Amino acid sequence: MKTVVVRNIPRADAKACEVFAKRGVSTVHEAYGRIGLMKPYIRPIWSGASIAGPAVTVLAQPGDNWMIHVAVEQCKPGDVLVVGCTTDNTDGMFGDLLGTSLKARGVAGLVIDAGCRDVLTLKEMGFPVWSRAISAKGTVKATLGAVNVPVVCAGVNVTPGDAVVADEDGVVVVARNSVADVMAKAEKRFADEDGKRQKLASGVLGLDMYNMREPLAKAGLVYVDKPEDV
Amino acid sequence: MKTVVVRNIPRADAKACEVFAKRGVSTVHEAYGRIGLMKPYIRPIWSGASIAGPAVTVLAQPGDNWMIHVAVEQCKPGDVLVVGCTTDNTDGMFGDLLGTSLKARGVAGLVIDAGCRDVLTLKEMGFPVWSRAISAKGTVKATLGAVNVPVVCAGVNVTPGDAVVADEDGVVVVARNSVADVMAKAEKRFADEDGKRQKLASGVLGLDMYNMREPLAKAGLVYVDKPEDV
Amino acid sequence: MKTVVVRNIPRADAKACEVFAKRGVSTVHEAYGRIGLMKPYIRPIWSGASIAGPAVTVLAQPGDNWMIHVAVEQCKPGDVLVVGCTTDNTDGMFGDLLGTSLKARGVAGLVIDAGCRDVLTLKEMGFPVWSRAISAKGTVKATLGAVNVPVVCAGVNVTPGDAVVADEDGVVVVARNSVADVMAKAEKRFADEDGKRQKLASGVLGLDMYNMREPLAKAGLVYVDKPEDV
Amino acid sequence: MKTVVVRNIPRADAKACEVFAKRGVSTVHEAYGRIGLMKPYIRPIWSGASIAGPAVTVLAQPGDNWMIHVAVEQCKPGDVLVVGCTTDNTDGMFGDLLGTSLKARGVAGLVIDAGCRDVLTLKEMGFPVWSRAISAKGTVKATLGAVNVPVVCAGVNVTPGDAVVADEDGVVVVARNSVADVMAKAEKRFADEDGKRQKLASGVLGLDMYNMREPLAKAGLVYVDKPEDV
Amino acid sequence: MKTVVVRNIPRADAKACEVFAKRGVSTVHEAYGRIGLMKPYIRPIWSGASIAGPAVTVLAQPGDNWMIHVAVEQCKPGDVLVVGCTTDNTDGMFGDLLGTSLKARGVAGLVIDAGCRDVLTLKEMGFPVWSRAISAKGTVKATLGAVNVPVVCAGVNVTPGDAVVADEDGVVVVARNSVADVMAKAEKRFADEDGKRQKLASGVLGLDMYNMREPLAKAGLVYVDKPEDV
Amino acid sequence: MKTVVVRNIPRADAKACEVFAKRGVSTVHEAYGRIGLMKPYIRPIWSGASIAGPAVTVLAQPGDNWMIHVAVEQCKPGDVLVVGCTTDNTDGMFGDLLGTSLKARGVAGLVIDAGCRDVLTLKEMGFPVWSRAISAKGTVKATLGAVNVPVVCAGVNVTPGDAVVADEDGVVVVARNSVADVMAKAEKRFADEDGKRQKLASGVLGLDMYNMREPLAKAGLVYVDKPEDV
Repeated sequence: MKTVVVRNIPRADAKACEVFAKRGVSTVHEAYGRIGLMKPYIRPIWSGASIAGPAVTVLAQPGDNWMIHVAVEQCKPGDVLVVGCTTDNTDGMFGDLLGTSLKARGVAGLVIDAGCRDVLTLKEMGFPVWSRAISAKGTVKATLGAVNVPVVCAGVNVTPGDAVVADEDGVVVVARNSVADVMAKAEKRFADEDGKRQKLASGVLGLDMYNMREPLAKAGLVYVDKPEDV
Repeated sequence: MKTVVVRNIPRADAKACEVFAKRGVSTVHEAYGRIGLMKPYIRPIWSGASIAGPAVTVLAQPGDNWMIHVAVEQCKPGDVLVVGCTTDNTDGMFGDLLGTSLKARGVAGLVIDAGCRDVLTLKEMGFPVWSRAISAKGTVKATLGAVNVPVVCAGVNVTPGDAVVADEDGVVVVARNSVADVMAKAEKRFADEDGKRQKLASGVLGLDMYNMREPLAKAGLVYVDKPEDV
Repeated sequence: MKTVVVRNIPRADAKACEVFAKRGVSTVHEAYGRIGLMKPYIRPIWSGASIAGPAVTVLAQPGDNWMIHVAVEQCKPGDVLVVGCTTDNTDGMFGDLLGTSLKARGVAGLVIDAGCRDVLTLKEMGFPVWSRAISAKGTVKATLGAVNVPVVCAGVNVTPGDAVVADEDGVVVVARNSVADVMAKAEKRFADEDGKRQKLASGVLGLDMYNMREPLAKAGLVYVDKPEDV
Repeated sequence: MKTVVVRNIPRADAKACEVFAKRGVSTVHEAYGRIGLMKPYIRPIWSGASIAGPAVTVLAQPGDNWMIHVAVEQCKPGDVLVVGCTTDNTDGMFGDLLGTSLKARGVAGLVIDAGCRDVLTLKEMGFPVWSRAISAKGTVKATLGAVNVPVVCAGVNVTPGDAVVADEDGVVVVARNSVADVMAKAEKRFADEDGKRQKLASGVLGLDMYNMREPLAKAGLVYVDKPEDV
Repeated sequence: MKTVVVRNIPRADAKACEVFAKRGVSTVHEAYGRIGLMKPYIRPIWSGASIAGPAVTVLAQPGDNWMIHVAVEQCKPGDVLVVGCTTDNTDGMFGDLLGTSLKARGVAGLVIDAGCRDVLTLKEMGFPVWSRAISAKGTVKATLGAVNVPVVCAGVNVTPGDAVVADEDGVVVVARNSVADVMAKAEKRFADEDGKRQKLASGVLGLDMYNMREPLAKAGLVYVDKPEDV
Repeated sequence: MKTVVVRNIPRADAKACEVFAKRGVSTVHEAYGRIGLMKPYIRPIWSGASIAGPAVTVLAQPGDNWMIHVAVEQCKPGDVLVVGCTTDNTDGMFGDLLGTSLKARGVAGLVIDAGCRDVLTLKEMGFPVWSRAISAKGTVKATLGAVNVPVVCAGVNVTPGDAVVADEDGVVVVARNSVADVMAKAEKRFADEDGKRQKLASGVLGLDMYNMREPLAKAGLVYVDKPEDV
């Protein structure tokens, strides 16, 4: 591994990130063609936050948060810090002091493929974290990693500057050069869904609204009247 | 697998389901002789709901929610939709649009051995879901399964029409022809527990209330005064 | 296994436990030299409680809560009941009746390396529980275990009388004869952290506050300007 | 739970079981329409065995093998003993003494949704076991379960007398009244596969042999020449 | 944590360890009253070895094998090295070079609650390892732990000098001062089992040999003739 | 997702792959600076194979192996097929027919972040597979994915043409443009290790050979004579 910090990275468009935060993870993930979603073990430590911003990335050793301290300096307002780990680990690599530091720099939130601690304080501060675990386990500061190199976090390859969107449904990452396209598709999807929702609420069946009856029959779906007829 | 939809199923008695919803999963599970409980990885996506109703069942392919769309039409007011999967899967097979549709039909809630998304919206709508995971992962509509055939969901065999009871403690399934018997036992257990609770609150020990001292001694339990005496 | 109950155990100092409950798990864990922390699968069943007290320990068979009933009698006000299991198990070994009994005796809370049920009632009662799972699964009362012998609970060896500290971040166990020392260190750490928090909030970087720049450079950390320079 | 032993059960046809053992789990599973397969955590404790026979079923408490002792008497030559557990458990419920007993009765093998021990001796004896875990953990004989009632084992509902097929690829269960139909389809599939294997070995592509090119194009698959063209 | 190495420890009797290795883990575990067994995720990296010896213990940081290098010097012929980790970790902390070093000192084998690598070479060398995982993941040498202090390894508290027994069925740890007693019981159990095995092989049922019929009936077990009678 | 197949990819140097296969995963992983290693849940389905070759990549839907059939045509002699999945899945996406096809094309082996079946036949054929699970679960051919796009497989980002090295210790992926450098370092490491192995075998301690005593003392390691001195 190259033990390096990259100072300047191109960042996903701020306007698009604003839209992503409003539309949410599920809509953005669909708009992006159903890719880029982190594994569902990454969960918010408190409920209700919805953020989006360009990724500043960290590659850390298990049980060692030295590189997170290094990464703070590279963060700008609106960024989302994304921490991958060289191996599966649940230690509490992040707590309220680091949260205070990131908040002071205007960072939107943290996504970490490891553990987080001081969760009640972080909630009181309103600093949102998505993590693999909650753990008080203290970490050392002994071994180098890297900042702002591509990292795999919870099954997704994150390039520094990619747009990271996180809410109650999880975390999705949109490649920086796809951001404009995905924003447009997310807005369209959002507009479309409202009409569908009203139809469904009025009792129209998805079977009819989506014209599924014919393809279902063609695929071989059979209706019978009673359990004994199966 | 027979790719079939059964239109008419016998349904567990509505009155009994009402009682089950009030008494809750732990009491019903005990009244049923400690069987029928789904594995504890099935959790409510929001806290506080308590429901019971006859099962409409779905067998789905991993990452494919086509059959859930088919199942909506078979649901009646008060039903609980139960989705089993042909293989372990956490994809977000269910979201707020399907939730809107089920709510419009008066369905009491959903139990799904896979993932769910749009959790904040579903909570706002007051539509309760018990799932294996929360995940924004989008699903295809490509392969048939079945509706209203017996399915294994989270380790329990569910026959269409069985009573499904779900609350904060989990999900229990009562066979349709045991419902009357279990209802009576659940009511009795509920009545008995209140007296016990008051005794215990007043300081009476379970050891005495349940007459455990003699069987414990007979089984060989020994009391010593100090750690060194072990 | 010796099927034994030890009646009298030395208990961790009550004053220290009071301090531990205020300072919380993460601070105590650090003050204790980063040992004694239970694995992070042990989670509170409801959010917000923070307790500390001497351990009364139980060793139980999977799916059998007989020994918990036995242990209740050995509990004194302020104690924390700690239940280890002879094998991994998630059954609902503890519910609101046992909770009522423990509360009547002034017990501070329960830590159980198995399942818990009646979670909404326990929350209403204000009785805090940290468990491995939530499960309505009923248990038998058939096989002996032991009370107040050393048990391994969630990866930590707990000797009866050790101080158990539990909050939103997890559970840490401090050996009884280390309690005074750890209390002093926890208080010092707490005092120190406040100054650090203010500095970080004002924008001072941890890199500077902790004097990390020199050791980082010495360890070989390199800064480059652009991704292409890596 | 009814604590009952059913003495006489209808058994899957022996001739069909012989064919199933020869054709193996993957072929039978396909012939059965891709249902009935146990979850993949069930693995053989030693490699190379391939068996099939009618199920004698056991429902056991976690950490309690009393009902397995009861079940031995109900086994006939060629049977496969299938043990489900009321809750997830890995204890060593089965060892070489029970294996000796089953072998003396001509039982074909064991499938257990729990642990197994004495694995080297069982291998020397040539008695095949498929289990969830290998564990020396001893079990009690304290609580009743049932024999020859339907049980869920590793995610599959097993009715006594169903055909159980087990080999290196896992375990599949065929409902007794589907056995003749599945046997015919398995034989056909086996015959068909040989021709396909020879074609593929000679270099014919599956794309051509299965006529996939047109449906792939229709579904939207695009070929490009270089990574830059994506 | 005290970063300390203890040079001289009392060791479990060599003669008893010899017996334990012959009788095996399941027998010793039973003779010890069914305690001391490590969790079943600890598995041998190659099949067939059976060892027993006094424990030299290591407490290591995740992803850091510095203390294993330190521990080698403290090992004597016949010892078993036992490595616990401050947090769950699967990194390859041990490989063929360390194996060569331990073999040169006459160490009987390694039990590690983390990963192991170079498994084919270790097998060729005949050096037995029981581990949580197989992983090539390299580790750092940056942070201190301890040698010959009590550690929790795979759920068992191991005091330096305890007897560690490991074979195909897993790993059991016997407290040093229980070794003589357990050895006697293991020998008796071994002698008894042979007679039982012969009886069972001749077709005598465990139900009769263990006199289970009466207690089963008393506990409420009922026999019925046909499935319909349940 | 772009449903695309890339026909021509640059491939890692064949000579280097030959060296990698000889030196093995652990050595290559170290030579590469301890990155690129897949998570340890990826295991060989049979023991003893050691391969290396350029990656042909597949992105597949859960339970759907259509794209593997497409990918076969893109494979050249010596290639390693790498299959990632859009979501966690253990279905048996690969069996002996596909193995026959790949073998006919001279493919070195398969790495799949899902399940594999027909393991005994694949072993007999000598076709090596590293997979997440063994499962007979049949899959559909209904939904497109992609071939020869970057995929995340078992936690590692794999670009088509990267060198994939796989043996008993796991799977490591080396970026194509690092292959020459890593080959040189692997050869050097291999040469160095032999000398070390001989020293260690002769009884020299790693503590001395690696000059660890001074840094250990500096880091604060203390030696005491007896357990009571801790």
